[in-house]
Amino acid sequence: MFQPPKGTRDWLPDEAERWQKVLDTVRKAFEKYGFRPLETPAFESFDLLAAKGGVGEAVKDEIYYFKDKGGRELGLRFDLTVPLARVLANNPNLPKPFKRYQIGKVWRYDNPQAGRFREFWQADVDTVGSASMLADAECVAAFCSALEELGFKEIKVRVNNRKMLQVLFAKAGVKEAQMLEAFRSVDKLDKVGIDEVKRELEGKGISWKGIEEIIKLKGDVLEKIEDRYGKVEGLDELKDFLKYAKILGIDKYIELDLSLVRGLEYYTGPVFEVMIGDAKLSCGGGGRYDRLIKVMGGPDLPATGISFGLNRVVGLMEEKKMFKTDSTKKIFVASVNDFVRNDAAKICQKLRKDGIIAETDLAGRKLSKQMEYAAALNFAYVILVGPKELEKKCVKLRDMRSGKEKEVNIDKLSKELL
Amino acid sequence: MFQPPKGTRDWLPDEAERWQKVLDTVRKAFEKYGFRPLETPAFESFDLLAAKGGVGEAVKDEIYYFKDKGGRELGLRFDLTVPLARVLANNPNLPKPFKRYQIGKVWRYDNPQAGRFREFWQADVDTVGSASMLADAECVAAFCSALEELGFKEIKVRVNNRKMLQVLFAKAGVKEAQMLEAFRSVDKLDKVGIDEVKRELEGKGISWKGIEEIIKLKGDVLEKIEDRYGKVEGLDELKDFLKYAKILGIDKYIELDLSLVRGLEYYTGPVFEVMIGDAKLSCGGGGRYDRLIKVMGGPDLPATGISFGLNRVVGLMEEKKMFKTDSTKKIFVASVNDFVRNDAAKICQKLRKDGIIAETDLAGRKLSKQMEYAAALNFAYVILVGPKELEKKCVKLRDMRSGKEKEVNIDKLSKELL
Repeated sequence: MFQPPKGTRDWLPDEAERWQKVLDTVRKAFEKYGFRPLETPAFESFDLLAAKGGVGEAVKDEIYYFKDKGGRELGLRFDLTVPLARVLANNPNLPKPFKRYQIGKVWRYDNPQAGRFREFWQADVDTVGSASMLADAECVAAFCSALEELGFKEIKVRVNNRKMLQVLFAKAGVKEAQMLEAFRSVDKLDKVGIDEVKRELEGKGISWKGIEEIIKLKGDVLEKIEDRYGKVEGLDELKDFLKYAKILGIDKYIELDLSLVRGLEYYTGPVFEVMIGDAKLSCGGGGRYDRLIKVMGGPDLPATGISFGLNRVVGLMEEKKMFKTDSTKKIFVASVNDFVRNDAAKICQKLRKDGIIAETDLAGRKLSKQMEYAAALNFAYVILVGPKELEKKCVKLRDMRSGKEKEVNIDKLSKELL
Repeated sequence: MFQPPKGTRDWLPDEAERWQKVLDTVRKAFEKYGFRPLETPAFESFDLLAAKGGVGEAVKDEIYYFKDKGGRELGLRFDLTVPLARVLANNPNLPKPFKRYQIGKVWRYDNPQAGRFREFWQADVDTVGSASMLADAECVAAFCSALEELGFKEIKVRVNNRKMLQVLFAKAGVKEAQMLEAFRSVDKLDKVGIDEVKRELEGKGISWKGIEEIIKLKGDVLEKIEDRYGKVEGLDELKDFLKYAKILGIDKYIELDLSLVRGLEYYTGPVFEVMIGDAKLSCGGGGRYDRLIKVMGGPDLPATGISFGLNRVVGLMEEKKMFKTDSTKKIFVASVNDFVRNDAAKICQKLRKDGIIAETDLAGRKLSKQMEYAAALNFAYVILVGPKELEKKCVKLRDMRSGKEKEVNIDKLSKELL
């Protein structure tokens, strides 16, 4: 029997309905901040995909790669930043700053694990054409606002500045040529633990002691940095970011964390990582990437953004039972016998015209079977259409939770249900 | 410079916003009829894709085909019926009838033409597990309801019954072995004209005269069929369908058309085609396919459905200027000088918290440039934040259409705008 391809999954109706609510909520939160939608193809030119991050051909191992019949090399998109950069290159006249959100699937050829798929959903907000830290703070605030609307209370945004970290690491003795290596090792901190990071850095001949002092800074971090290292590059950016975070009312979520690096090389300033679920689950992250769009063939524009891993967010919401079962408006119109089926269909259609979600029997089932179906599909109310009531232009309305029934005039039915 | 891959396109914010409204409208119309969402992967096993329609390997020429690193043969889905059949096979316990909608992109390796893409949107409603013509009528009604909500007034649904047509063609002398050939030729009627169809049929040795008599039947078609051919198979289905169409209030859109065949072989009963725009543009179609799900490895279940070509619908809506420009709630908060920027950011954030779509300057622009930006992006109102007004806890509110300004207290701003 055919299955969904390896690493992919289906969303059956119960779950798809919950996802739809999440997508709507996230979208509306982004829109309030002035981000507007962008939609791009599922696949892009392979060369474009290879241009990001500078890994070139090697990206083939991590993506779904194919050729079309014209021999064009293509690949399914692995993120939503690549298409954004291309769109900016293709449309030089888009007004700047360009604030866009994009919500859609991306595909990566990872080894599937629990909760990790080769096809998954991302929701990104990015602002292109602004160097202001307000742009960065807005992206983070839009993300937090989406999480709040979804019902999350414990949100933590870890914040660092790559520019500053680079200066501090250099002051700690890391040579320019080893900077990326040092970043990559520190980035693994959460995954492998401090001992392993120490071992790795020392193995590469990078001094651990200086780095340890930096990444362990807690409390009045900014003051301590100024005390120890003086005015370093990126520090003002960080201060600005914190100022705007306060203006936007998200300072309660922010936590400076000098051990936050984020693996990708292209970040040029602030970096963020958003944690939920007792602050243990990373559900997204991002940062400023002022050079990337040019590298990818676009114009030379500063940019910042943040990316939402929807699968993780929804996974946690399912686990914590954060979804309300909302069947209040779902109505099943049942026929007591075969002679009233057409009347039931008519009543059902009238409810729909009045904006009510309504269904009637399509399978010629006896009343008892219809009731079983209505219970299985979690209908809130069943309307019982029977000959006696029809004579009085009435139906019986049964509340499926309480089991209570009452007679309602057909003309007043929609009003009663709304 | 990188472009969207051949046959694909982007949806920039103005257009993406309009599309989003269309998707929401269609979805809500489907939901009222009790259809529930299903979401499936973008690609499926190649063997599954090849199973539909029985063309086998030849389908490779018409789809995006690729292998994953494990050597699995895959292809981008070319419709939403294939995944539906697979989902039913994978989940035998789904309650029946199973009423689902799915809205998403599909990919076909066609030769791109004007308005025709290799990546495009479909919106499908299908009911699986009901043999009742009410199920067919509901699918058509849900489709019509979506079109009505989108603002279409002229809608025509051409209806025929393949089972009946087969009997009539046989009575007209078409041999069983040539039936599909005859169907295929007649299906081209709209595209190539009656003379060409005649030529083609006669070339194949199929009698044109009998077929012509059938497909040209107009007026009281059902009566004429009974008069001439007696009780033929499928006629009762057609009558039932029309009865339910009347119950659902869509009979005004229905037009019996014995020349409607629809190319695909798998239809087993009613077939539909929906026309809009002075009834000249086909924007979707479907029919009953009681054997297909089993052919594709699923359970033996009757099924019917209809598929919406969203690109065509939106294309016509753009052409006919059916979209209302809706910027009533979009607010730009401008800073009169650099000293009030933080206040502007604060006011902007307050509006967002109150559910208003609001933006402020991120590019350190002078007031005149901010106003240019607000005009270019079609903001309905600009809030002018200046030092004098701030002293009075006020701002100026400018209506961008009339150019009129008034002073509003900051605490009353959201109320004023909502």
